[in-house]
Amino acid sequence: MKKIKKALISLSNKNNLKIILKTLKKYKIKLISTGGTYKEIKKLKFPCTEISQYTGSPEILDGRVKTLHSKIHAGILSKRNNKLHQKQLIKNNFNEIDLVIVNFYPFEKTLEYKKSHSKIIENIDIGGPTMVRAAAKNYNDVTVITSPNQYVELIDQLNLNKGSTQLEFRQKMSEEAFSETAYYDSIISNYFNQINKNPFPQKKTIPANLIEKLRYGENPHQISAVYSLKGKLNINQIYGKKLSYNNYNDIFAALTISKSLKKNTGTVIVKHANPCGVSEIKDQIKSYHSALACDPISAFGGIVACNYKIKKKLANELSKIFFEVIIANGFENAALNILKKKKNLRLIDAKNLNKTNLKNFVSNFNSVLIQSPDIKKFEKKDFKIVSKKKPSPQQMQNLLFALNVCRYTKSNAIVIVNNKSTLGIGSGQPSRLDSCKIAIDKMNRFQPEKFLGSVAASDAFFPFIDGIETLVQAGISAVIQPYGSIRDKEIIRFANQTNTILVFSKNRHFKH
Amino acid sequence: MKKIKKALISLSNKNNLKIILKTLKKYKIKLISTGGTYKEIKKLKFPCTEISQYTGSPEILDGRVKTLHSKIHAGILSKRNNKLHQKQLIKNNFNEIDLVIVNFYPFEKTLEYKKSHSKIIENIDIGGPTMVRAAAKNYNDVTVITSPNQYVELIDQLNLNKGSTQLEFRQKMSEEAFSETAYYDSIISNYFNQINKNPFPQKKTIPANLIEKLRYGENPHQISAVYSLKGKLNINQIYGKKLSYNNYNDIFAALTISKSLKKNTGTVIVKHANPCGVSEIKDQIKSYHSALACDPISAFGGIVACNYKIKKKLANELSKIFFEVIIANGFENAALNILKKKKNLRLIDAKNLNKTNLKNFVSNFNSVLIQSPDIKKFEKKDFKIVSKKKPSPQQMQNLLFALNVCRYTKSNAIVIVNNKSTLGIGSGQPSRLDSCKIAIDKMNRFQPEKFLGSVAASDAFFPFIDGIETLVQAGISAVIQPYGSIRDKEIIRFANQTNTILVFSKNRHFKH
Repeated sequence: MKKIKKALISLSNKNNLKIILKTLKKYKIKLISTGGTYKEIKKLKFPCTEISQYTGSPEILDGRVKTLHSKIHAGILSKRNNKLHQKQLIKNNFNEIDLVIVNFYPFEKTLEYKKSHSKIIENIDIGGPTMVRAAAKNYNDVTVITSPNQYVELIDQLNLNKGSTQLEFRQKMSEEAFSETAYYDSIISNYFNQINKNPFPQKKTIPANLIEKLRYGENPHQISAVYSLKGKLNINQIYGKKLSYNNYNDIFAALTISKSLKKNTGTVIVKHANPCGVSEIKDQIKSYHSALACDPISAFGGIVACNYKIKKKLANELSKIFFEVIIANGFENAALNILKKKKNLRLIDAKNLNKTNLKNFVSNFNSVLIQSPDIKKFEKKDFKIVSKKKPSPQQMQNLLFALNVCRYTKSNAIVIVNNKSTLGIGSGQPSRLDSCKIAIDKMNRFQPEKFLGSVAASDAFFPFIDGIETLVQAGISAVIQPYGSIRDKEIIRFANQTNTILVFSKNRHFKH
Repeated sequence: MKKIKKALISLSNKNNLKIILKTLKKYKIKLISTGGTYKEIKKLKFPCTEISQYTGSPEILDGRVKTLHSKIHAGILSKRNNKLHQKQLIKNNFNEIDLVIVNFYPFEKTLEYKKSHSKIIENIDIGGPTMVRAAAKNYNDVTVITSPNQYVELIDQLNLNKGSTQLEFRQKMSEEAFSETAYYDSIISNYFNQINKNPFPQKKTIPANLIEKLRYGENPHQISAVYSLKGKLNINQIYGKKLSYNNYNDIFAALTISKSLKKNTGTVIVKHANPCGVSEIKDQIKSYHSALACDPISAFGGIVACNYKIKKKLANELSKIFFEVIIANGFENAALNILKKKKNLRLIDAKNLNKTNLKNFVSNFNSVLIQSPDIKKFEKKDFKIVSKKKPSPQQMQNLLFALNVCRYTKSNAIVIVNNKSTLGIGSGQPSRLDSCKIAIDKMNRFQPEKFLGSVAASDAFFPFIDGIETLVQAGISAVIQPYGSIRDKEIIRFANQTNTILVFSKNRHFKH
């Protein structure tokens, strides 16, 4: 238990200052403060000593140097149970500082406002983190408060202990203080990486904000939480039970595809992080039914992402099947009223999310693999028609749509498409041939009548004829695939022999 | 271009100090230094001013306060082109400090040595990061050096510019400085999270060390790098070409399974991050052949992880097929000589890696999902035999082996096993029934003779009879699955009707 006699207050965010001052006064805690905070305290009519008066040194360099003074830091860092430390304080006419209430220049906010580089740099706080780090190191004797969110806890603590704080509390505040300084410098560090165009520095820190602790991870025996890598997630749950880990994972898988489709167009159904139906038809009812038709059985309990605002009529259709989550770029009120009748459904508004927000890293063992996302727009120059038979513009559109779904399906991936809707998706197989068979099976099972005019995409080249052969035998008339196999020529020959359209893609699209 | 007249040096790591001192002397740069570094500089016979002499204040509190002095920080932080700043420096008898060479108390190393908490806390550097952050903020005028690795660059820079540094160089050093301070506080912050048992703090920073930049990501149009979340990766490439992103990803997938098997036992073959054959037989030749037999076609170009030291005889066998990577707990010399004849093969020694190193997070859009890994050991109490027919000890072992492979296979996952070796693996399907079919197809295609006595695992419950029915029809005699379906009773009834052994698992094992 440590009695607090003197507090140093230096705040950028001055919210709820008065509340805390009242409690400090109640326990006769003396205050030292800096510039703007000092003025605010005086305005609120609490007694306070200005820091330059306290140190005997004037604030200089436009405020760059005010708290960086031995008297302050010795006051924070001295060990109270160390006689030598005590003697040195007395000798230098220094005094103990028992409570440090500091928050930093708003560097992250400044970045959001996109001010000039020099303004951004000026918002790198030097004195604040130094005081906080010193106090956090010396938590055995000193209490450090780094956010107005902690005021209630501090007040409770002081009231409970009549002006003292407990070690456990100080240690917790110290933990949060280092969380704060690490996060702060991580944001600065990432800013410098960005302006220096250095995505992969030697030492990298990834700053994350807790969105919520989840009930559990992929399975109930795993603990889990979801963090944001920027201020907020940009997806907004507007109805339903708490999201689970698997919900989040599926939502992101669904949105990755849905946000890659034409603006305000397209429906994606996802199960176990793989698409089980995608359609890019403009009419929302047709689009949904076409996506569903690809595998109406697997769709049960899945997640639907609508890249448009859901209208009443579609809401009625969606209500007929059990989905865990429905995502849309907004919901009409009438649609919302219908969907809110479903007890176990969760509704997500994702209209503010865009695919440039994509991050891509995965961690295994004590490593993390970081990569830029596969969101490069398809360009004409990335493709080459290599068969004698040429695709019509409509066939080409279907091929590109198929390849786009393919790149967001787990490898090996084969996607069969007709009329901008998937007929079969083969995913997650060690063998490309098996993925072909799975995709064909889906088509033959649920929409065998649609094989005529259907096209297929492969996320990587066919290493042998057998894959494309199987597709052609199933009635596929056009195939798009990355090139690069030593058997590319054989594949082209096969396409010509069977009058199949064959398009080569410059880019491979593995996803694991 | 900024001329350097005065440098402040304060080092924990004093490597290569002499080299840098020589260059500083060459350009008549005056030195200020602290405690141990000062002594070292004097020992090396270079002129230098001790910091307390420079500031006029003695070092106090056992070194906790020595550089935290206005004269130091004003000297670092003053803007050289600001007349007011210049006037204030003169008025206070402060001088400009143009170069800061500082590295920190070795907090991370101290953690490794597992010293006492108070020793660890004492290794939180306060003065060092303050000087570095101040200098990095003022990089427009000041050069900051935070690692002996940067000495060569600094020397080149000074020689090139006759004792001055260029803005571009200073900005780069500033970037690296913030990288250092962010990383440093992130390690401290994670330490506090750990001792306070707080895995999910409000603000979390993930500290990572660059292992290597990769040629590209999952695909050539994506940039990528691999980082370690601790000092090193604990896997050691001993032969072959540079690893690719997909190699790393497959290596970790393979090791996750391989390290979950019995000590020094078991072979895993992985393709596209999914297992395509696993065997836990003690004899290494038999184990490898059994793993390979599950899908010898998909194994081509895959990754083999041997949870044992590879002997000569196995090396000969492994040489017969093209694998991208072979991982083992060491290689006998004779084995190494054989394997090193393969030009495109990479060899990895993973004997120092263990599964407690598992981290688990994935990032999507601007979020990151963090969870504890699914490495809970199977315990007797997690399982319940629910069928009339009971498994023999051997059948139970096969069931648990199947479930273990299942939990590291992408969902929906079905794994068929006989004699501690996989016969069929169905992975990555939105439909559990489809995963059953894929697993059965593999068995029937490559080892139809082994169906007798085979058992199967499912990573989650069967929502309908059809899945287990398909397995039983294919000859499977025992099934293990998590419970929890509203149709559990029907499933049990079906098992009893068909004289099938059925074991329920308390834990589900999704993996996406």
